[in-house]
Amino acid sequence: MAERLTEVTDADLDAIEIGAAILGTGGGGNPYIGKLRCREELRKGRRIPVIPLADLADDALVVSLGGMGAPVVGVEKIEQGEECLRALRAIERETGRKADALISAEIGGANAMEPMLTAAQAGLPVVDGDGMGRAFPEMQMTTWSIYGHRAVPAAMADEKGCIVVIRDTPDDHWLEHLARAAVVPMGAACGLATAPMTGAFVRRAAVPGTITQALTLGRAVLDAHATHRDPIAAVIAQEGGRLLMTAKITDLERHLKGGFAVGHLTLEGFGDFAGEAGRIDLQNEFLVFWRNGTAEVIVPDLIVVLDSDTGLPITTEMLRYGQRIAVLGLPCHALLRSPEALRIVGPAAFGYPGIAYRPMPAARRPAT
Amino acid sequence: MAERLTEVTDADLDAIEIGAAILGTGGGGNPYIGKLRCREELRKGRRIPVIPLADLADDALVVSLGGMGAPVVGVEKIEQGEECLRALRAIERETGRKADALISAEIGGANAMEPMLTAAQAGLPVVDGDGMGRAFPEMQMTTWSIYGHRAVPAAMADEKGCIVVIRDTPDDHWLEHLARAAVVPMGAACGLATAPMTGAFVRRAAVPGTITQALTLGRAVLDAHATHRDPIAAVIAQEGGRLLMTAKITDLERHLKGGFAVGHLTLEGFGDFAGEAGRIDLQNEFLVFWRNGTAEVIVPDLIVVLDSDTGLPITTEMLRYGQRIAVLGLPCHALLRSPEALRIVGPAAFGYPGIAYRPMPAARRPAT
Repeated sequence: MAERLTEVTDADLDAIEIGAAILGTGGGGNPYIGKLRCREELRKGRRIPVIPLADLADDALVVSLGGMGAPVVGVEKIEQGEECLRALRAIERETGRKADALISAEIGGANAMEPMLTAAQAGLPVVDGDGMGRAFPEMQMTTWSIYGHRAVPAAMADEKGCIVVIRDTPDDHWLEHLARAAVVPMGAACGLATAPMTGAFVRRAAVPGTITQALTLGRAVLDAHATHRDPIAAVIAQEGGRLLMTAKITDLERHLKGGFAVGHLTLEGFGDFAGEAGRIDLQNEFLVFWRNGTAEVIVPDLIVVLDSDTGLPITTEMLRYGQRIAVLGLPCHALLRSPEALRIVGPAAFGYPGIAYRPMPAARRPAT
Repeated sequence: MAERLTEVTDADLDAIEIGAAILGTGGGGNPYIGKLRCREELRKGRRIPVIPLADLADDALVVSLGGMGAPVVGVEKIEQGEECLRALRAIERETGRKADALISAEIGGANAMEPMLTAAQAGLPVVDGDGMGRAFPEMQMTTWSIYGHRAVPAAMADEKGCIVVIRDTPDDHWLEHLARAAVVPMGAACGLATAPMTGAFVRRAAVPGTITQALTLGRAVLDAHATHRDPIAAVIAQEGGRLLMTAKITDLERHLKGGFAVGHLTLEGFGDFAGEAGRIDLQNEFLVFWRNGTAEVIVPDLIVVLDSDTGLPITTEMLRYGQRIAVLGLPCHALLRSPEALRIVGPAAFGYPGIAYRPMPAARRPAT
């Protein structure tokens, strides 16, 4: 996509939904309801202006936003719709400064939509980038935290009018502990805004171009559908990824542990992969893909599970015994591969001290 | 005690500790460590000035303070010592106004000491009164909440430097839910300061003279010890209460439920009460005293369990099979007996919809 994204319009939303869900690598929550809300705002005449990272002034104040809670609850308990807006206002009041732009903490899943929705409501632009380049389960796993920005003060807002400001913590792990506890009485879902960042910092620390990336990825799938081409091949071509396996889910172990969906799926290859045994470990997101007992694609690289027919992404909670899937590996952004990033989002951080991260081949992404 | 209390000195602390523990009716946490901290502050040359309710100016800003958490944790995890001071500073920053005086949310138990400690640290006076006149387990059970003051914004501070401000909630029950969840990652103990109150409101809503009351009560016990008189009779005389039973604990059922110690003790009377069967239900505090199957003393009136020899109070967690105890009923303050108070701290609020509150005879307390 050569043109530069300056605004998200109604026509873009379906594609962004698909792209964001793919980048969710099984987690991040479902962007569907957020998409409908964005559409509603646009139909009221509001707009979602997008600015590229490069256009952020050094001293612009950028607030990172997202919904926090259990993805499953996000489906069952529909947001009031202004949770993130109220969290933004609470942060503005706490710091005494107005935001100049918004950015997604997490492009993967539902949090692709939240800052766009708030942008429409607040009359602010949303930055084309995010703090993960995918989905991760915890707040200290943003590139903001990894590259030195403290997320406090952070503000949480729920649909009942509760506002909680976490003003100080020893580090962002403690912020995660506190916020995770406080979100429970909030009905396991809230909008969250973290401490404003400068434009100069965001230009350096954000994973760039990820709204464009989600849009382009979703369009590739939709175009493939419209022209009867293979959507899976289209995703791989778009992302510089690799088809890891076409397979049937022959076993599924998934349970809730500490508020996370934890488990693994066992795969039996078919087609070109007949006779191969696969396994994917998950903790909200897909973490490690194993082939015949060897870890092959490892977090933070993206493991994506698509329906083998439609090419549409399947999230962790929608996995079922017997499903026929295509498993893709997509290389993560270089910002997630540095030593400081791997300490926070590498395999050891997810309970795999024995697995060393080996990067997939670098991305061949189109210029954005 | 005819003289008016203008300052708490080292010589008062042991008596206040005993009196506060008696007014804790089994709960409220142990005031022992708080007493040692107050003593330490006084020995450093700091002071704990006390002002009577009547001396509060209409527009004085009064902040209610207390420790929040599990009483058992308060014994095992010793406070850093400035939790309530940091919570006070957070509320001052949140509201942009400095406190003129401090007051205890709860005179019963450990929270008698917290505002005195903070008063010494902050150079502020502590008001002779509190928001419960005893101990209760939850935040909406203060006379502040009952008589119309909203407790938000409220600030919580722990020993690690975490500061959480609960800025808004639909009501004080929701504040309780949120704070109770947030205190868990704080190690189940924090200092808590609630929204500043005016002097005019506090004069009307506070249970008056309760520091003096704790001091006088404790002195009665200590004087009885020193003069070989009966400390139990001294407590009863001081408070206008009644000896309900001298008894042996023949069964003790106590478990943790939702963070509270819940259960009951079964009593077999001795002495003047030989042949009688008693029972005390508890939920952190003692709630209902039953004699031969009939509810006789009912929350919010105070049920106090003393060691039958020493007259010293026994808290819920220190109850043991076989202990010989004296059970006293002490009438609560009239502020807890109004219809609006009984909705919040009457038997139905504690899960006894079938029991109607019947007040004990009114207090015959000495003028304070």
